[in-house]
Amino acid sequence: MSVLSEVLDANESYASTFDKGDLALPPARGFAILTCMDARLDPAKYAGLSEGDAHVIRNAGGRASDDAIRSLVISYKLLGTQEWFVIHHADCGMEFFTDEVMRDLLANSLETAELGPDGFRDIGEGPGSAEAAYIDWLTISDRAQAVVDDVARIKAHPLVPARIPVYGYVYDVRTGRLVEVPAATAAGAAA
Amino acid sequence: MSVLSEVLDANESYASTFDKGDLALPPARGFAILTCMDARLDPAKYAGLSEGDAHVIRNAGGRASDDAIRSLVISYKLLGTQEWFVIHHADCGMEFFTDEVMRDLLANSLETAELGPDGFRDIGEGPGSAEAAYIDWLTISDRAQAVVDDVARIKAHPLVPARIPVYGYVYDVRTGRLVEVPAATAAGAAA
Repeated sequence: MSVLSEVLDANESYASTFDKGDLALPPARGFAILTCMDARLDPAKYAGLSEGDAHVIRNAGGRASDDAIRSLVISYKLLGTQEWFVIHHADCGMEFFTDEVMRDLLANSLETAELGPDGFRDIGEGPGSAEAAYIDWLTISDRAQAVVDDVARIKAHPLVPARIPVYGYVYDVRTGRLVEVPAATAAGAAA
Repeated sequence: MSVLSEVLDANESYASTFDKGDLALPPARGFAILTCMDARLDPAKYAGLSEGDAHVIRNAGGRASDDAIRSLVISYKLLGTQEWFVIHHADCGMEFFTDEVMRDLLANSLETAELGPDGFRDIGEGPGSAEAAYIDWLTISDRAQAVVDDVARIKAHPLVPARIPVYGYVYDVRTGRLVEVPAATAAGAAA
């Protein structure tokens, strides 16, 4: 069965017993999580969310990109969230390459690269694109520091009120556990 | 109990029976979903995902922002996804305001606005910030067209290979059902 059919079948099953049609637009529990797109992470499960509870923003790395900040500002200004979590994770793909590697890989080809013991290796053939040189890939070289940096960037943004606490955590994909990054949480505490 | 304590308690419960510590980094089912941060959406539930299955990218509106495209390119180039879904939804907050409204609200104050029958109304007091004028808030004026536009933007990006199909859907928050946007899916079909 194709992925599309599988997804639509799963959705049909979900919809057939759906009883959450009256949920309000603003998150009922008043918080937001910024985390990684990684397939192993299920924020609803690891943080105990039901439909309607909290905003969940996800991108490669769970980074405080401009777009994540756009989403967080909408989250508090229009929909009333009062606390935010930045949750990166162990064994993140973003730790295994650099901007230079990504630019070289994509300049070579638009096919999928292979992850080997020394990082990603291109096995595809061209054409590639030089467009990758114009993108900041927001890679991670120090796991805890990236959480500290992202919390700091959010807190320092001119559209983010000082009253909003921002907690910094790393999710351990081997244990399912959230591990605090104390320096990030401390820096993210409400003023 | 505070939100932070609730989240950590829920995580402790999740971790206590966690048995997915051996999942591989690349998504097992080889696809990615771009969808909205809205609290009512649980992509794992509405699309039938288990931990390890698929990348999930979320932002305000589920829009094909530069950052979403950064994440999608990492998703296929480094981690091998082969098919993508763009899934917006009914009753999205992004339909209820414009760039001008957001800029005025934030210029007035950094407090939470109130959603009334005529849209968002600012009830906070200053100071605000003019920074909002420099941000494209990626609001939505036509629900189906926004899906078409986002799929088209992704397909036209120089770093996206023509072989990747991109399906366009709208999730109905009242029924839990995914509704296809045929024009988007057709435009997103592999070349």
